[in-house]
Amino acid sequence: MLAFQAVSVRPPRVRCMTVPAAISLVTLGVRDVRASTRFYQSLGFELSPGSVEGDVSFFRTAGGRLGLYGQDDLAADAQAQPRTADGFRGVTLSINVDSPAAVDAALAAAGAAGAAIPKPALATEWGGYSGYFADADGHLWEVAHNPFWPLGADGLPQLP
Amino acid sequence: MLAFQAVSVRPPRVRCMTVPAAISLVTLGVRDVRASTRFYQSLGFELSPGSVEGDVSFFRTAGGRLGLYGQDDLAADAQAQPRTADGFRGVTLSINVDSPAAVDAALAAAGAAGAAIPKPALATEWGGYSGYFADADGHLWEVAHNPFWPLGADGLPQLP
Repeated sequence: MLAFQAVSVRPPRVRCMTVPAAISLVTLGVRDVRASTRFYQSLGFELSPGSVEGDVSFFRTAGGRLGLYGQDDLAADAQAQPRTADGFRGVTLSINVDSPAAVDAALAAAGAAGAAIPKPALATEWGGYSGYFADADGHLWEVAHNPFWPLGADGLPQLP
Repeated sequence: MLAFQAVSVRPPRVRCMTVPAAISLVTLGVRDVRASTRFYQSLGFELSPGSVEGDVSFFRTAGGRLGLYGQDDLAADAQAQPRTADGFRGVTLSINVDSPAAVDAALAAAGAAGAAIPKPALATEWGGYSGYFADADGHLWEVAHNPFWPLGADGLPQLP
């Protein structure tokens, strides 16, 4: 009986259909690939030689790769309707750093590179410290220190 | 003279202001955090116990972490105007896999989980194979095989 139970509580060995959990690349649609490329380079991001000047740019990051592509080209690639309005896009990207001072330093660097700072850094209700900068197309980047998410050897936050 | 030249061509040792190149977290604004969380779980993404049910969800991925948060809450967090229109958001996320067959399998899994497939997989002009699925809020995920970007041990594409 115990043996039977031990077998019966095992989940069936079905090969489930899954989608690999990865964010390999985030591509931002931009009005001017050259100008946006210069902006991200001026932040200190390293441009990959695999980029095609003025057409598409790729940057290595501690997470997935960052791509810059013409926003109409990107919409066409996804067979999506072109953008029709400004306002929030429903997507934010975050750069997690290891101290509040590093948040301040990164936002200052972004501002010095010409980014807008729609939300200066402040202590958050969840116990961290963060602010936002925006690139020329309004893509929002949070720079955050989260004391509950220590950064691992890969530079990425370690979730509980 | 040679010694002088060897010194003079060195770039000055200035500590430049930089922003760490990282995509630590991508947060998607969604209408229904619970429903969207179930959707990403049904793709096979692993929900972090650090999530707060119905409020915010976090998933580990091979790249930065994926967050799901109410779209109005996310707009407020970024001090951005709420979304006013549908249409393309100017942002796509990509999941890179190691073969065309893996693209087909992932898109089939996404479709089986209820995702829309705005662009079925096809051979691309850049020599790869890719298609797109969309979640309930229209966030676009490309699933791609890029033979020129082999996947590294970290599961992420290795750029040239």
